[in-house]
Order: sequence, then structure tokens, then C-alpha cells
Amino acid sequence: MGHGGGGAMSAELVEHLFLPAYGSAAAPELGDSAVLDLGAGTRLAFSTDSFVVKPMFFPGGSIGDLAVNGTVNDLAMSGAVPLYLSCAFILQEGTVLTELGRIAQDMGAAARAAGVRLVTGDTKVVDSGSGDGVYVNTSGIGVVPEGVRIGPRRARPGDAVLISGDIGVHGVAVMSCREGLEFGTAVESDTAPLHGLVAALLATGVDVHVLRDPTRGGVAASLNEIATASEVGVELVERDLPVPESVRDACSLLGLDPLQVANEGKLIAVVPGESADQVLAAMTAHPLGGGARRIGTVVPGHPGMVVARTGLGGTRVVGLPVGEQLPRIC
Amino acid sequence: MGHGGGGAMSAELVEHLFLPAYGSAAAPELGDSAVLDLGAGTRLAFSTDSFVVKPMFFPGGSIGDLAVNGTVNDLAMSGAVPLYLSCAFILQEGTVLTELGRIAQDMGAAARAAGVRLVTGDTKVVDSGSGDGVYVNTSGIGVVPEGVRIGPRRARPGDAVLISGDIGVHGVAVMSCREGLEFGTAVESDTAPLHGLVAALLATGVDVHVLRDPTRGGVAASLNEIATASEVGVELVERDLPVPESVRDACSLLGLDPLQVANEGKLIAVVPGESADQVLAAMTAHPLGGGARRIGTVVPGHPGMVVARTGLGGTRVVGLPVGEQLPRIC
Repeated sequence: MGHGGGGAMSAELVEHLFLPAYGSAAAPELGDSAVLDLGAGTRLAFSTDSFVVKPMFFPGGSIGDLAVNGTVNDLAMSGAVPLYLSCAFILQEGTVLTELGRIAQDMGAAARAAGVRLVTGDTKVVDSGSGDGVYVNTSGIGVVPEGVRIGPRRARPGDAVLISGDIGVHGVAVMSCREGLEFGTAVESDTAPLHGLVAALLATGVDVHVLRDPTRGGVAASLNEIATASEVGVELVERDLPVPESVRDACSLLGLDPLQVANEGKLIAVVPGESADQVLAAMTAHPLGGGARRIGTVVPGHPGMVVARTGLGGTRVVGLPVGEQLPRIC
Repeated sequence: MGHGGGGAMSAELVEHLFLPAYGSAAAPELGDSAVLDLGAGTRLAFSTDSFVVKPMFFPGGSIGDLAVNGTVNDLAMSGAVPLYLSCAFILQEGTVLTELGRIAQDMGAAARAAGVRLVTGDTKVVDSGSGDGVYVNTSGIGVVPEGVRIGPRRARPGDAVLISGDIGVHGVAVMSCREGLEFGTAVESDTAPLHGLVAALLATGVDVHVLRDPTRGGVAASLNEIATASEVGVELVERDLPVPESVRDACSLLGLDPLQVANEGKLIAVVPGESADQVLAAMTAHPLGGGARRIGTVVPGHPGMVVARTGLGGTRVVGLPVGEQLPRIC
């Protein structure tokens, strides 16, 4: 299970299995999304994601919302304007068609809300016992506006690390309705399309260095990836982390670190320190960035490592989750 | 199972469930691939396909070969030059990593052979009992050359229907090694990337009207779709169908119609009648079109219907398979 968790084991699988096997056919990064130069000034963002969340319906959303918003967000994190989505279903024999219909309706509504079109699809059915319910893959394409150069390698010492709002909400929402893990909390998933927020952010004219939506593996995984890719350190201030009470309670009950819990409607922005306030103002003016705040700084020390200053004045290492904390969270 | 078979039930699912549910977010066709106008003269082909073939390794190929060639071929059937592929895995917990490695190596080799790059990916893991082995989704993008207008609605009465070689081979190859269905035949899957053959065909300068790779549902499903989309009839001549002895034997044993058995390395071309010989010459000169021949004609009568002239001088209706004949063939 750990290999699918988005943490260290997932990274190992890519580095030690997929990349060597693909050989020269693979792009060197093979990341969440790729930016492709089509010539004539057209740069295309291309992204893929499969969704296996369990249960398929949860407070605040469904696998259908996630499938659209997740891929829209992967595209948005390269600064692209998302345009077209594919949708491929793998259904277990015996899937209730009304449930499939609800999922498809959620996808349609989410696509309309995000302004993207569902243009191509595929459906496969596997025999009973060879799947559970519905798995959805969406791939997406978008166009990267001229002049936008956002990428995980661009974090620089002195940059500010911003988050668009409360963390850990999606993960706790899904867990809260999973069999045997009822918390009695009323946490709803934060699933949302973030490209509008990204557009507001880019409209400031600030040279945004890195954007990332901290899904599987949470803020911890995203920041570790950025620290590694950019060969910089990241220093968080624990007391500045926006962790809602309900998320804090659920995490302490389960022994989880809110920094490692999935989000589906939040973004991390790494921007030049001197522009942090300007970007924060643009974020907080957007409906999806109302809770935006600065949570840390990019530092030259300890490259590849994320640390958090604790309330007591010490620091702790914020590791990449090793295996999976919360299986099938998206 | 029938809803995933590529036949009438699959078409119903798209028409009666997905299209209404997606509403205005859906492209009106929602087909195997879409051609998107990006402006500035750039037309992009975009396609998605999931692969759940069982077993994952079979004579002549594996799920890895299919995943690359299948999407390459979907793109090629719109006349596009395939460029980039995504690859998303859903693994069952406990999947043997050496098997995953073999699949990834097959994907790498197939991508190199087809000249496409694997640029973005995703891996999810589902718990044991919620999947069997490995499911792969690939989506692909390619660029449609200027002037190329290939589409399922362009078949016209008088057009010739050509096939690039023997039919039914992939389906029989997979069945032949499936538990309990051993034929003792040595049929190997025909999985292959067809964009080179398409390029050779387009290089003739002939106005190719329709291209289709007859995978799930076989030649019957592809021709029925073309007949419906173009509002024309199709008349096949049974004795002209290239059905290898081994496929014929396996089909009669199982009560299958070779016209409904999947192919993974063949294409149907619908071209103006007067250009048929020229296109056939180009096809037979290509390594993947050696067995090309004319199998029928587009007719004005019985629009939406495919018929075959039998050896006895009568005709029979070649229906769209209703449910699935051969589950999990790709």
C-alpha cells in the first residue's frame, strides 16, 4: 500500500522501477504534470491521475469531484489554463448504475464549474471480485500562458512559503466517514478547482517560483519534493500552520501529523520574500484563498530537508511520509 | 461485464448515462479520441484508454505493449502524429514488483518503438482483494497535420473498405492462454503501433475518409460505428475477409464471430473507391500492412447497418455485439 501513498515509497518506485524500465522513452522528471513545447510558442501542460478513494461519496464531495478537480489542479500548478479532460472508468461488475450516474453528474458539474470540457473517454469493466466500485482516471491538457515559468526547481533562499488555507481537511473528511473511523466531526472535504486562484496570483505580476497542491502525503510531501528538486532547505513555523481544531483532534487520536494529511483544495506558493505580502493580499481576496498565510521560508541550509520550528523554540524534521498513512484518500 | 465490451451496451452507457450526466461539459461525441483546435493552426488529438487485460502477459505481448500501442493507435486513427503519453497505474496490494517491472519495460520498449515519450504518470495502490494485478491507463496527445480530415462521419457511398491484415488474432491469442481455454494454437497477439502505416497511407495524397483500429468488438463494432456516424450502409464480402485458420477454428469452437473478435495491430481504412488500389499498394508495401485487402464497400442502402454477403450468395446482418464476448481482452 505504501507505494501508492505519495510518500517516500512512491518516489522510490518512480526512481528505481519506472524510470530505469522506461529508459530513454521517459521524460527525466516523470512528475505529476509535464510542460511540453509544441513549437510556435505553444506550451502545453499534460497531467494524469487515477482516483480510487474509498468511500466514493464523502462529506463535501465524491470521487467524481476529486477526479475533475484533482487533474485541473495538477495543470494549474504549472500555471496552465486547464482546457480539456479525458475520463476513463474501470467499473467492477455489478456496480450500481445509479451510483455511476451520480459520479458522472458530479464530474459534469465540477467540469462546468472549472470551465473545462470532457472530450474523450473509455470504460472498462472487470469481473466481480477484481475491483471495488469505481476507479476513475482523468488526464488533462491546458495551455501555459507566455512568460509563466513555474516549476519545482525554482525555489530560492529567501523565498516565502505560503499556504492558501486550512490544512488536512480532505483527509480527515474522508476518514471521518470510513467504516470504523467515525469521529463525530462535521469536517467536509475542501475539494475545489484552484486555477482561478492561480490566475489571481499570477495577475499580481509577481514572479511565482513554485506552486503545488499538497494532496497525498500532504504539505510535508510537497515541501520535501520542492526542497529536493530546488536543492534548498525549508523552514516552517509550527504556530503559523493553519490546522483547524477538528483536524488537530482527529490527527492526535490517530497519531497522524496534520502536515502529512491530504488536501484537495489548497495550494502552496513559493514566491520571492519581498513579494509575499502582495501575493497574500491577492490570495485572501479570492474565495478559495480566504485563509491564506505565510507558513515558512526557503533557506540555504540543510538542502533537501524541511524543518519546523516548534512552539518551544526547537526544530523538528518534517519528513516525507514513508509509506501510506491514509490509504485510498484520493 | 457487457458495458465494458465495446459493443451496444458500451454505446448505451455513453449515450444514456455519461452524456446526460456530463451535460454541457461534455463534447458531443465523447469518442475514443478527440481533435481539439488550439488556435494558431494547431490541432491536437487527445485520447485515453484503460487496460485490464487478463492475463497480463500473453503470446506476442503484455498489458504494457497494449497500453502504449492502444493509445498510439487511437491517436493515429485521427491522422495525428503521436507525441506524448501519460501512464497511470492502479496496483493491487501485493503485486509482484518484478512483474510490474516487466510491464514497465514493455511500455518503455513500445514507446521507443513508436517514437513517443512517457512524460507524466501516477501510481495508486488498492488493498488486496480490491483489484487483480495491474491496471494501466494511458492517455496520449499528438498533432494532426494540416489538411488531414479523418473522421467517422466521412464515409460516403462508393467508398472502399480496406483492412490492413488478418483479423481476430489478438482476441484468440489472449483467450488461448487463459485458464481453461487452451486451444493448443500458437497464435500471437498482433499488438503494434499503426501510426507509421497511417503515415504511409496519407503520403499517397489520397483523401482518406475514415480510419479505425478494430479493437474491442472487432471489425463488426468499428464498421457499425462508422455506418451509424456517416449514415451509410456497409456491405462486406465474407470470402474476402482475411481470417486465419487458427482464428477460424477457435471461433467455431467458442461460437464466436471472427468479425467481433479484438485486433490490436490492424486498421480499417475507408477511402474513395477509385483510390482503393493506390492505397492498398501503399499498405502492402508497409511491414504492418502486408496482408491488406479490400473487404467491402460503402453503400447508400440500409444506413447504419453492416451486412455481409455469404458464400452462398445471401446476405447476413453483421450486428454490433450486444454485451461482451471476450471479457478483459485489452
